[in-house]
This record gives sequence, C-alpha cells and structure tokens, in this order.
Amino acid sequence: MDLKPTIRAIADYPKPGIIFRDVTTLMGDPKAFAHVVTLLAEAHKGQDIQKIAGIEARGFVFGAALADRLGLGFIPVRKLGKLPAETYKQSYKLEYGEDSLEIHQDAVEAGEKVLIIDDLLATGGTVGAAAKLLHHVKADLVGAAFVVELPELGGREHLTSMGIDVLSLIEFEGH
Amino acid sequence: MDLKPTIRAIADYPKPGIIFRDVTTLMGDPKAFAHVVTLLAEAHKGQDIQKIAGIEARGFVFGAALADRLGLGFIPVRKLGKLPAETYKQSYKLEYGEDSLEIHQDAVEAGEKVLIIDDLLATGGTVGAAAKLLHHVKADLVGAAFVVELPELGGREHLTSMGIDVLSLIEFEGH
Repeated sequence: MDLKPTIRAIADYPKPGIIFRDVTTLMGDPKAFAHVVTLLAEAHKGQDIQKIAGIEARGFVFGAALADRLGLGFIPVRKLGKLPAETYKQSYKLEYGEDSLEIHQDAVEAGEKVLIIDDLLATGGTVGAAAKLLHHVKADLVGAAFVVELPELGGREHLTSMGIDVLSLIEFEGH
Repeated sequence: MDLKPTIRAIADYPKPGIIFRDVTTLMGDPKAFAHVVTLLAEAHKGQDIQKIAGIEARGFVFGAALADRLGLGFIPVRKLGKLPAETYKQSYKLEYGEDSLEIHQDAVEAGEKVLIIDDLLATGGTVGAAAKLLHHVKADLVGAAFVVELPELGGREHLTSMGIDVLSLIEFEGH
C-alpha cells in the first residue's frame, strides 16, 4: 500500500515556505492506519522489547496501537506539567527557544528494553531528549521508529550519533 | 483481571482533597493495557462504527489501540492550535475558567458512525464538547467509552441528557 497519498501536505504551515506533513489523514484512513501499525509491528516482532514509549501527542496514537499489537506496555513521554507522579525532565532546542519533556521516574524497571515511537523525524531534537530521559530511568533503548522522516533535516544522523537505531516508513523531500 | 490495582492513586493532586487516578501505571502494565483494549473492543465488536475519536491526550492512547483492534480510522480531538488544517472549535467549562477543543472539518464524512474514547469520565464537560464537534462535522455519534468513571461527578447524567450512550470499565468513589 502506498502510504504517501494518505498524508496531507499543508503548504506554508506553520510558516511560509514550510510544507507540513499532516498524518491525521493517515490516521483517519482505516487501511492506512492499520498498515502503518502492521509495518511497525513486523519490523519489531520477535525483538526483545518490554515497552513502547510514545512522544506526546501524535506518538501516542501510533505508539499505543503498536504496544497493543505487540502485547507490550506503553509509556507516555509528555510535555511539561502533564504527568502526575514524580518525573525527570529534559529540555531540548527548538528552532526558536526550547521545550521540555518529562517521564515518570518509575516508568520502567531498570534494564527494561524500550522502543521510542513518534510520528515524524525532523531534526531529532525531541526524540533525542526522550532518549536521555529513558537512559535516566535506566531503560535499555532498543531504537526509535517513525512514520515519516524528513531526511534533509538530519534527524537520523543526530540520533545515530547518540547510538540510537532509527527506522522510518515514509520519506519526504524538503522541510 | 482486576484493573483497579493497576491504576495509581495520587493523593492531593492536582490540589488538596483530590485523589488523582493515574492511568499511566495501567498503560505501562502489558496485561492491564491489553485487557482494557479487549474489553473496549468486545463491547463494540460487530457494531456499525467507522471511526474512533480520541480526546487529547490520554484518549489517544486507548482510542488508537481500540481503532487498530477494530480496524477503524482514528480521529484526534485536540486542544486549541494543535491541528494544522481547517477546524471547528468548541469551548467547555472547567472548574476554573474554560478550555477549548478542536476537530478537523473534514475529519469524517457526513453520516459516519463515530465512538468517542477518553480515559476518564468526571463531569463530562470535555466529552460533551467533543460530541458537539462531532455533530458539527455531521458524524453520527454512537456513544462514548471510558476506562475510568467517577460517578459522583455526574458525567454520565450530563452525557446521557445529551443523548450519548456511556460505557465505563472501572468506577472509583470520590472525586
């Protein structure tokens, strides 16, 4: 199945010159959504993984479906102030300014193998921060998987340089 | 399987006197998470439903897993400013002030049957707003399902008075 046509391109969003890749149209298409989860599941079936960590918020959608397919637990990695128990925080750079992610301190048991899921790999800043949080809780990070990758933004190189295995299903040129 | 012990109780959060029901511990427990998705799937199997609408952000976790189990599309109902294409907005009351939800105007085709999923039913204000958005996009709302219900807060009565069928898996006393 060709997934690309199920992803809506929004020109000049969030600012002029940027083409935003809107995966909500893929999510809403039952065949495309199921196919994405199947591809992610097949790529990781039989691997020694205990938990899927999904990045707020679109990573929750693909990550939770994958966790269910593989019979694994799901860990939410959230924006600041959203998790109710004790957390670790990690900031990361945005194009302008910075943002932070949090994880519950008891989200994993030490040594549990965790796969990160997010919808889109751009610069890799968000997932790099999530990886640091997972190291902080003593998880064993087995990799990061994405529905969409924008190769020109160098996210794969950034994550690979951190020792993180990267998988993506669809690539788009440009930003 | 007794799901209640898998939900963490956090005393005096977000303020004194409130016991917060933290479902992240349930999500992280592979058996509990799978069991919740199975119960939601069994309750709706064979029903004429085309799409699952999940409420940001914990509703994404259970809603997306359910959509995948049932082979349906997933619609995100999001906080303000998070959806990239044309949206409808709906505000709703919080204990202090108000908040808003958005849905993509083309999230469904007219007449498509949609089930709302969220993690917790308290006053029903959020899901009531989501239901209005779904009516706005001409969806046919088949009901709303929750992992946890706090019956004392009257959410079921509020939604039922709007003509919405309500299902919940677990009830907790108190707020």
